[in-house]
Amino acid sequence: MNHDARLHTLQRQAEEKLAHYLATCRGPEQVLDAMRYSLLGGGKRVRPVLLVSTWEALQRPGALDPWPAACALEFIHTYSLIHDDLPAMDDDDLRRGRPSCHKAFGEALAILAGDGLLTESFRLLADEYRPWPRQALQLTRELARAAGCAGMVGGQALDISYTGSRLEQEQLETMHRLKTGALLGAAVRCGAILAGAPAREIERASDWAGKIGLAFQVADDLLDVVATSENLGKTAGKDSCQGKSTYVDLLGVDACRHYLHDLLGQARCQIDALQPGSATLCQLTDYLGQRVERHFA
Amino acid sequence: MNHDARLHTLQRQAEEKLAHYLATCRGPEQVLDAMRYSLLGGGKRVRPVLLVSTWEALQRPGALDPWPAACALEFIHTYSLIHDDLPAMDDDDLRRGRPSCHKAFGEALAILAGDGLLTESFRLLADEYRPWPRQALQLTRELARAAGCAGMVGGQALDISYTGSRLEQEQLETMHRLKTGALLGAAVRCGAILAGAPAREIERASDWAGKIGLAFQVADDLLDVVATSENLGKTAGKDSCQGKSTYVDLLGVDACRHYLHDLLGQARCQIDALQPGSATLCQLTDYLGQRVERHFA
Repeated sequence: MNHDARLHTLQRQAEEKLAHYLATCRGPEQVLDAMRYSLLGGGKRVRPVLLVSTWEALQRPGALDPWPAACALEFIHTYSLIHDDLPAMDDDDLRRGRPSCHKAFGEALAILAGDGLLTESFRLLADEYRPWPRQALQLTRELARAAGCAGMVGGQALDISYTGSRLEQEQLETMHRLKTGALLGAAVRCGAILAGAPAREIERASDWAGKIGLAFQVADDLLDVVATSENLGKTAGKDSCQGKSTYVDLLGVDACRHYLHDLLGQARCQIDALQPGSATLCQLTDYLGQRVERHFA
Repeated sequence: MNHDARLHTLQRQAEEKLAHYLATCRGPEQVLDAMRYSLLGGGKRVRPVLLVSTWEALQRPGALDPWPAACALEFIHTYSLIHDDLPAMDDDDLRRGRPSCHKAFGEALAILAGDGLLTESFRLLADEYRPWPRQALQLTRELARAAGCAGMVGGQALDISYTGSRLEQEQLETMHRLKTGALLGAAVRCGAILAGAPAREIERASDWAGKIGLAFQVADDLLDVVATSENLGKTAGKDSCQGKSTYVDLLGVDACRHYLHDLLGQARCQIDALQPGSATLCQLTDYLGQRVERHFA
């Protein structure tokens, strides 16, 4: 199977697994409906694909099923999008080409749908990895650290406090390392943990994830400038209008493209240090570059 | 030491432990400040006291430290108050006699402070009980179930969808069982788990918690009518104004007092079935009644 087909297969599997694990959440329909709307409303499924690809690349005999953790991560990512879109935060009416959660269900249910997805992500881990308490605990720590104050929530707080100021590249990178990098890193580390990889490989994969996380944000900033809202499925060109610093503001479009390819080059280097084979990880690395470059074609 | 003094000692200990475990959260000061403001802004510390009291009553040799779990529960309770107070939810400007979190820090940071406390509660459990993966996993499941869609978040969603309609007693009880009962039940169950109590005792303590949880809400509804805002530290008489059904609306004040004492009687009965000694649990049961009755003295 070629790489593109493999990527699409993983994305399709992610959709099925997300629907399956969402159905394990019990509770009043009102909040489950809003969670379902946002969770199953499309998306590239970057984090689940990243987790499962890492797992495939590093798996040993006795590796555990990666999908519950992959879906728990996507629960967390989706909660963060729902809360980020709220009027008090980024105030975005459009998400993945459809009304954002609070536009469709009202603000109160959107807040609760986010709270619900976050909480259920930990329930999902604890329930599905119940026979393996040591690994369940390790995964819980990874997710909680990546999503908490030293990770995503902290990054979002920096983003808010930085809005309207012109940032140094270092501040911008710290913000993104927390806001998006931490969760991407957790995807790779959880994949490696579930694969049964030794500590040394988990660390190497984690370094790769650091470069990929940064590249991901640079690519996003470039796309925000060069793509249309229709291509993106969200409001394009919004960051600059909202007074948020971007890599494009800091470096300009050309230097930004160079920086992206530099990061991807470093990331490819780090994959080479990983054994066994990691074709899918190479392909994911390349995909980030291609996603941007097709707009310059 | 008499019971009142013991209760105050536990509350004071809870304050110290909360400050200690909050200091283990890393991240940007902006969001940690807002979390600190709400977490250390007073409160009766009912859930930590309940957890530790249950632990004391049921502890066996080799029992694990109850305080990390007690504080994780209070993190979750505090997050729920911050999000409930938001303009899109209950729109409450006052909490524990001070401006609510969004009034002091703005809505965006209040949403993030809530998200942060929820996430850090799971990190706290996973970090502090790391040497005991089986128990850490059990505690994570208890907290996530109690706080998730089949618990607190679900109850809050019902509360929103019920606002403006006149409820049957059964609907009201289901809503409160999810909204507040689940977390109180988790406090008792976590206390029993950490005490090393056998499954049979965990179930009995859990039944007691069910009655206490219900009694807690009936007492709250009564206080909302008979106490002043100053006594409560939050806006009094608000539920009825907001079109929310209360036990007082359904039953009237007198029948409500009788119902409360009936529930407390049943709760006391269930403590008697628990061995070893449970003087503090008796005292907690009585405390709920006394809290209400002093307004009728």
